[in-house]
Amino acid sequence: MFDIRRFDGVIYGADYNPEQWPREVWAEDVRLMNEAGVNLVSLGIFSWALLERAEGEFHFEWLDEVMDLLHAGGVDVNLATATASPPPWFSLKYPDSRPVTVDGVRLEVGGRQLYCPSHPALREGVARLTRAVATRYADHPALKLWHINNEYGCHIDQCYCEHCARRFRAWLEARYATIDALNDAWGTAFWSQRYTDWAEIQPPRRAPTYANPTQQLDWRRFSSDNILELHTLERGILTEITPDVPATTNFLGFLPGLDYFRWAQEEDVVSLDAYPDPGQPDSHLEAGMVFDLTRSLGGGNRWILMEQATSAVNWRTRNAPKAPGQMRMLNHLALAKGASGIMFFQWRASKAGAEKFHSGLVQHVGPERSRVWREVTAFGAELKTLTPLLDARVPARVAVMFDWHNWWALNIDSKPGVIPLLPLLGRWYAALRTLGQNVDFVAPGGDLGAYDVVVLPNLYLMDDTTGAKLRAFTERGGHLIAGYFTGVVDGQEHIHLGGYGGPLRDVLGLWVEEWDVLLPGQTNTVTLNGAQVTVTDWCDVLHLDGAEAVATYDGRYYAGQAAVTRHATGQGQAWYVGTELPPGALRDVLRGVLDGAGVPHTLLPAHADLSVSALPDGTQLLHVLNAHPHDTLTLTVPDGGTLFPDGGDTGTRIELLPHGVTLIHYPHAVQISDVQASGS
Amino acid sequence: MFDIRRFDGVIYGADYNPEQWPREVWAEDVRLMNEAGVNLVSLGIFSWALLERAEGEFHFEWLDEVMDLLHAGGVDVNLATATASPPPWFSLKYPDSRPVTVDGVRLEVGGRQLYCPSHPALREGVARLTRAVATRYADHPALKLWHINNEYGCHIDQCYCEHCARRFRAWLEARYATIDALNDAWGTAFWSQRYTDWAEIQPPRRAPTYANPTQQLDWRRFSSDNILELHTLERGILTEITPDVPATTNFLGFLPGLDYFRWAQEEDVVSLDAYPDPGQPDSHLEAGMVFDLTRSLGGGNRWILMEQATSAVNWRTRNAPKAPGQMRMLNHLALAKGASGIMFFQWRASKAGAEKFHSGLVQHVGPERSRVWREVTAFGAELKTLTPLLDARVPARVAVMFDWHNWWALNIDSKPGVIPLLPLLGRWYAALRTLGQNVDFVAPGGDLGAYDVVVLPNLYLMDDTTGAKLRAFTERGGHLIAGYFTGVVDGQEHIHLGGYGGPLRDVLGLWVEEWDVLLPGQTNTVTLNGAQVTVTDWCDVLHLDGAEAVATYDGRYYAGQAAVTRHATGQGQAWYVGTELPPGALRDVLRGVLDGAGVPHTLLPAHADLSVSALPDGTQLLHVLNAHPHDTLTLTVPDGGTLFPDGGDTGTRIELLPHGVTLIHYPHAVQISDVQASGS
Amino acid sequence: MFDIRRFDGVIYGADYNPEQWPREVWAEDVRLMNEAGVNLVSLGIFSWALLERAEGEFHFEWLDEVMDLLHAGGVDVNLATATASPPPWFSLKYPDSRPVTVDGVRLEVGGRQLYCPSHPALREGVARLTRAVATRYADHPALKLWHINNEYGCHIDQCYCEHCARRFRAWLEARYATIDALNDAWGTAFWSQRYTDWAEIQPPRRAPTYANPTQQLDWRRFSSDNILELHTLERGILTEITPDVPATTNFLGFLPGLDYFRWAQEEDVVSLDAYPDPGQPDSHLEAGMVFDLTRSLGGGNRWILMEQATSAVNWRTRNAPKAPGQMRMLNHLALAKGASGIMFFQWRASKAGAEKFHSGLVQHVGPERSRVWREVTAFGAELKTLTPLLDARVPARVAVMFDWHNWWALNIDSKPGVIPLLPLLGRWYAALRTLGQNVDFVAPGGDLGAYDVVVLPNLYLMDDTTGAKLRAFTERGGHLIAGYFTGVVDGQEHIHLGGYGGPLRDVLGLWVEEWDVLLPGQTNTVTLNGAQVTVTDWCDVLHLDGAEAVATYDGRYYAGQAAVTRHATGQGQAWYVGTELPPGALRDVLRGVLDGAGVPHTLLPAHADLSVSALPDGTQLLHVLNAHPHDTLTLTVPDGGTLFPDGGDTGTRIELLPHGVTLIHYPHAVQISDVQASGS
Repeated sequence: MFDIRRFDGVIYGADYNPEQWPREVWAEDVRLMNEAGVNLVSLGIFSWALLERAEGEFHFEWLDEVMDLLHAGGVDVNLATATASPPPWFSLKYPDSRPVTVDGVRLEVGGRQLYCPSHPALREGVARLTRAVATRYADHPALKLWHINNEYGCHIDQCYCEHCARRFRAWLEARYATIDALNDAWGTAFWSQRYTDWAEIQPPRRAPTYANPTQQLDWRRFSSDNILELHTLERGILTEITPDVPATTNFLGFLPGLDYFRWAQEEDVVSLDAYPDPGQPDSHLEAGMVFDLTRSLGGGNRWILMEQATSAVNWRTRNAPKAPGQMRMLNHLALAKGASGIMFFQWRASKAGAEKFHSGLVQHVGPERSRVWREVTAFGAELKTLTPLLDARVPARVAVMFDWHNWWALNIDSKPGVIPLLPLLGRWYAALRTLGQNVDFVAPGGDLGAYDVVVLPNLYLMDDTTGAKLRAFTERGGHLIAGYFTGVVDGQEHIHLGGYGGPLRDVLGLWVEEWDVLLPGQTNTVTLNGAQVTVTDWCDVLHLDGAEAVATYDGRYYAGQAAVTRHATGQGQAWYVGTELPPGALRDVLRGVLDGAGVPHTLLPAHADLSVSALPDGTQLLHVLNAHPHDTLTLTVPDGGTLFPDGGDTGTRIELLPHGVTLIHYPHAVQISDVQASGS
Repeated sequence: MFDIRRFDGVIYGADYNPEQWPREVWAEDVRLMNEAGVNLVSLGIFSWALLERAEGEFHFEWLDEVMDLLHAGGVDVNLATATASPPPWFSLKYPDSRPVTVDGVRLEVGGRQLYCPSHPALREGVARLTRAVATRYADHPALKLWHINNEYGCHIDQCYCEHCARRFRAWLEARYATIDALNDAWGTAFWSQRYTDWAEIQPPRRAPTYANPTQQLDWRRFSSDNILELHTLERGILTEITPDVPATTNFLGFLPGLDYFRWAQEEDVVSLDAYPDPGQPDSHLEAGMVFDLTRSLGGGNRWILMEQATSAVNWRTRNAPKAPGQMRMLNHLALAKGASGIMFFQWRASKAGAEKFHSGLVQHVGPERSRVWREVTAFGAELKTLTPLLDARVPARVAVMFDWHNWWALNIDSKPGVIPLLPLLGRWYAALRTLGQNVDFVAPGGDLGAYDVVVLPNLYLMDDTTGAKLRAFTERGGHLIAGYFTGVVDGQEHIHLGGYGGPLRDVLGLWVEEWDVLLPGQTNTVTLNGAQVTVTDWCDVLHLDGAEAVATYDGRYYAGQAAVTRHATGQGQAWYVGTELPPGALRDVLRGVLDGAGVPHTLLPAHADLSVSALPDGTQLLHVLNAHPHDTLTLTVPDGGTLFPDGGDTGTRIELLPHGVTLIHYPHAVQISDVQASGS
Repeated sequence: MFDIRRFDGVIYGADYNPEQWPREVWAEDVRLMNEAGVNLVSLGIFSWALLERAEGEFHFEWLDEVMDLLHAGGVDVNLATATASPPPWFSLKYPDSRPVTVDGVRLEVGGRQLYCPSHPALREGVARLTRAVATRYADHPALKLWHINNEYGCHIDQCYCEHCARRFRAWLEARYATIDALNDAWGTAFWSQRYTDWAEIQPPRRAPTYANPTQQLDWRRFSSDNILELHTLERGILTEITPDVPATTNFLGFLPGLDYFRWAQEEDVVSLDAYPDPGQPDSHLEAGMVFDLTRSLGGGNRWILMEQATSAVNWRTRNAPKAPGQMRMLNHLALAKGASGIMFFQWRASKAGAEKFHSGLVQHVGPERSRVWREVTAFGAELKTLTPLLDARVPARVAVMFDWHNWWALNIDSKPGVIPLLPLLGRWYAALRTLGQNVDFVAPGGDLGAYDVVVLPNLYLMDDTTGAKLRAFTERGGHLIAGYFTGVVDGQEHIHLGGYGGPLRDVLGLWVEEWDVLLPGQTNTVTLNGAQVTVTDWCDVLHLDGAEAVATYDGRYYAGQAAVTRHATGQGQAWYVGTELPPGALRDVLRGVLDGAGVPHTLLPAHADLSVSALPDGTQLLHVLNAHPHDTLTLTVPDGGTLFPDGGDTGTRIELLPHGVTLIHYPHAVQISDVQASGS
């Protein structure tokens, strides 16, 4: 069990790569870390090449020195197992350990993460290095946390080589036991694909046309599991050698390749690398969504923001800096959403290499003339006053169901239309945030007990177990709302016959006959609350079977039929949105759902960001952020709050400058409906 | 000779893939087929993996059962040779039977059509399976037609492996006899490409820059011929075993890879798979053009629409459904253009696999609640009243010349500008249809005897034989109209020197000096019939040598020179259009051609579709279709017609609802100029 | 030393490929060459396959005949070493001589330039053929110039095969001596990239993510040097056999792959292939920029326009012809910018092959009916009157610094934003030309002594030596102006720490803290000369340290800070432009720089092209060109000029028709500020 008390208050720090700098810089680094309030650094992430200079030949002296120096300076260490990238000598010695693309191209040295996750020598090498590092530093006083590998699956989330093909077959054999069961699951009666022997099965390499969808889906499942084996291999060694030191690996939020709901079970604490584009007006929503996901992956426990940029990154086509105040504002957002640590990549911006234009705490210009440094040190000081947040929880009455398997299934080709899940998810999330809701994410297998409202944006893949769970949820009074193209296939990606909506048809009180997929530029309208609203992209042709129409189509061949519905079922209600509503209309529908469920809400401008934290003593914090780069935000807040942490009456009218932040402490639960925007 | 009387009236049916469903569904299928009026199903197309489970080990029992069941239910069978996709065991046993891309990537199992058309074991396997199937069912009473393979060249129309390279060399040796002749034909004096040995010749694989154009052209020719050998291999076995059973393979319309004018010579009846996008406003033109091509491939004989969708397909980015009535309307279009059978892919929409979102006759929702099923059964009933159409021919006085070799040549790189032949062809076709013309397509080698007008849209590649044939056509009174970039190269893709227009210069009475290729956004204007018309893309610089100017350029350095010309030659006329006219102007020019040739015409709105069928007794049918999804169509038609097939006076003013269809029977030839649109 | 007097006046001619035509055409060719005024042809460029039909088996008879025929007709020969493309037999015999792409695809025969520049047999073959050709024709009286190979690096500027990998390692070992030095230079402490052995190093083949930037940069340097070895190999053989015959290879202007400043040192005379798009309104600027570069590569000496098109090319998506007069106008532009020869690709437009739609002097229509031929012969006659230009120099007071190493560095991934150097360079160049300036290009290593103004558009990569040189330039009175993102990295692509601007910080009197990279659609404004100007793409956040603000930002978080600056330093001034100004504002800033430096200027409309030539007798020529296709150009010119070469007073007001050209001879230096546009 992870205990944040191991650390010195809220974690504040960065990746630290001293090997990129001459030894004389190291002492200066520790001095500056103290100046900035840094209390933890992630060390050694890309040090394999320096630590093991030939197979089995280790050089730890330099790292010993750094560890000692940090400890002497009062800085704790999140020590990497250093396995993120094998050295060039490894790739030369084991040429087939280099990963292979879907087209059969074997990749080459020069970048990073150059390994096939299945290669025996790679697995041996990872184990050897992990064991060596863990043994060396098991008792070092600076060691506070293990950083396992780095950003698994960031570049190589699928390798199509023969080693992987063999493991894929073994994984399938374990899953299906018989080749007949696999043939059934994959539907190989189609297109003459019936297998007679496991050896015939291949990864979904480049094929003349669409590969079998269940083959593709199982490949994704296998690839996530296969990389997870690498992780548990390291985890096991660390547990054996340092049973009392917690371990984490840095997640990447909505990463396509890894089922983090499964992965998170292997973490002592969940940590996140997050890089929203600060040049975009909705970067706080992009950030907030991934922060909420991360907390949810960890079961609602607090988590660590392991990497982010102090200002610009280097890998977009255009990389905007964070404007003054924007970093602080986004860090407060992380804290509001459960972070117990704020770290950056990286301590000192590199002088060379592919990431030299990625900002750091110490910028190229040096600390003394840098506004980024001024903001970094100011925030470090502020953070020391925020220790009470470490005990806060983030109470949410609304959960959004998200499932990597569904995402994989939606991304397979051959659909009625392309369904870009993340942007659609983002529209539901934004609407809920505008209504002032704390939001959790929940996997189909997760516990719904705490929620009043569960949202299913496009949960295309839904097995009967999930259907039954959602039925039980509404029966005991839960309120459900589903987007179009939900409940279409089962876990093998086979159609639920008999009308789309599958396992939810009775819950929703309707069935879907077909989809009118609109071409770009084509529209329809629906009448919702007496007004005509333009809809795009997709129109379900719905048939009611108990539900009532909330909105009806005005045009096309199903004019007059329902577009949005509500169904009283059990003690609860089930809503359905059969078309792509514009943001305002989606928000209005969700408001109706919240009203039905008795969940208070408000209505905020897009750049006002509101969260609530609950402290163990029953008091609550209202986090108010102004995400606008130029405009002031004015809000009316409930009476009785005091400024946190400084105290002092806030009054009921607060004004936030651009990128401003205010935390208000209430001796009771915050009534969110009492927060009111004054214009926007 | 193919006799449609083998079948029970107009063919109505679908691909039937019972292997995807449990046995208990099969009886229900036959019952529903009867309900829908289905009288023929295509069976076993992707059954290789199920029929031959190891090399030479056949399992026909399940297919026996299905054949018997269908026969008992009165449903005939279009039996597949089942060779469309080799099973996974085959690809594993013969790894080099997997095809190779232009980049050298060997493709992998998981999709379909995974074979190199040259591989010896593949050819053996195809022959073995064809012989086994034909022998097994030669005398089965349900067998009415052979379905050879499936959509040849749909995904793999070129394979760049070594087997294919060897066959390419042999094909070239047969064509050219000596390496010197090949060097001459390919113009290898250019770029140091002279070959000294056949072994040096390769397919046009990825090269540092443009591969030799004649190499590319011959590669296309070889690839079409090479795949055709596979087809004739099967054809020969079927003829040997079942000489009295006709055979077909399903064509794909304007498929880039196969010269269907050559292929069609091997068919007892031509059949077509057609998938126009029902969400596009001109889908009836897209469909009509490919229907007219298909009839023309078969020498004007009636043909079978072998595959189409009842509603949506699954492989576009967005797949619109067919709106109510749209399927019926498009089927009537096929009948008007010579179809003697209306079939679909597929009987029952799949539950799994890459095509599960392709609509079927039995939709996922099941038949009883499906509007598609209602339309399918209604049309099946209607079709039984349309048997007289089986004897109708489609009389056309206008032919459009289309040549795969020209298409291949135009698609080779290194041209004055990109010439997208199909869209340009579509503009000529649409103009002719708007003028109420039945249209045939004719290859350069085809018979022009029946036509008053021949249209050559961009017939870039034209040998002297074709030139002479067109000269003879005009001499005996034919009217010719050619688009720009016509007659530029010969059959080896060598320039006709001395002024572009090559073998047609004397016929056209002009020569082309150069082309002013306009960049995107640039325009010129021409004066046509006293009005200024904006032209784009391309302006020929023309010199008259007997022709007269019909339109002249207004701007750029050749202002005042001819843009559109007419030349009285022999008993006929030859027109030339040297620039890209907008649709209205192209239609006006074509109207002039028709007037000159004495061909009656009318002027229709774009969504009004008019065709004429001629019955053996000298009576004619006027097929009027309204392709508009929302608007009513009103037309004045000639007096004296009766509704077909029900009889009853139509009056002279008819009104069609959206997607409406009316057939009018006249006791004489329809005078198309008496059909008049009332507004549009 | 190259002496233009070897040739018969100004060189006029073309690539001549007689092997593409029957022998009977050859005599006609010589007759037509005389008619056109052609005095030099480039012969045998792609004749390897015809000259060496098997290894070591040479066939020179046909070439002997052509050489004799040309000489008899009075046409000199620029004889190719014929090594541009190895024959197919070579590629078959040495399969691994075929080059390999970054993805590992080995390219195939069918195009041209199919060789790995490192392959031993290729190098032997090149030497063997060069020696054979040189020996055969060493004493032939037609031989006036050697044409080495052809367009090196046009298609294959990088080959990723094992031969190249080996040579890359050797090149690196020669550069760095120790692996530790390489590790330092490449910054391999980053991402676990430390090398322990040279054998581990690979070309930057496809990798999981960004390859090491210095690896990429060194790979570009190696690739340029490696191909240069091929060139010096030929050069050495030619010098040995024909020490008195000058040699050249045709450059391609701003070719990405080859550092022509290094290459030009190996040339007796620099020659250029130039293909600006004649359909674009700024084709004269595109042409002028590459002409000025070419003269600058040759140290200001006159050069040869070796290839261009008489009208259209064949390799763009749309290939516009040159309008009447446009070829002459562009040729005059070349002469004004120092050309001593005007040649074309190719004499006779091909009948077959990939370039048959590339225009020639003899067009497909034949000479007698061709406007191109009329223009070609007229220009040939005109050229005979322009011999005095052979002695002219092009005096420039302004130089633009251009560096291939900087270009390579900018094109590497992982930057703050994409910096498209050539378009940005073009904007500076266009502004200078609009101000009437002759412009030189200069490499960082070049001599700045002759210039009053040096312009550095985005000189991102700048080592301390270049910094010191520019400091010395301003100290002795030079005027410098730099664009944003200048002086950021050193020659190893490592950051100059301590504030961007690096080695120029003191010269510019400022340092750059960070960049506000604007996303598409985002803007800021600056106040310049009292007016608000919209800026895009990029805003430096500047700190003044001696410089004064010329323009300041109006918005975003650095509002009020400097955007454009001027710094009096030494005897000169250093300006800095920290944002992307629109063309008019950039021109205004440059006008200020010219004023400060005492360089006269004017202001011209974009289609007026002005250049000045200086003759040895102190007189000067003003070249005035009208690049507009439709509009007349009217200018006021200084008094006292006479029409060149015909004499006659020009008056002070001249009017040029579209594509018109006027040369005015002044007995003194032209005062450019006295040239005035009359409207535009």
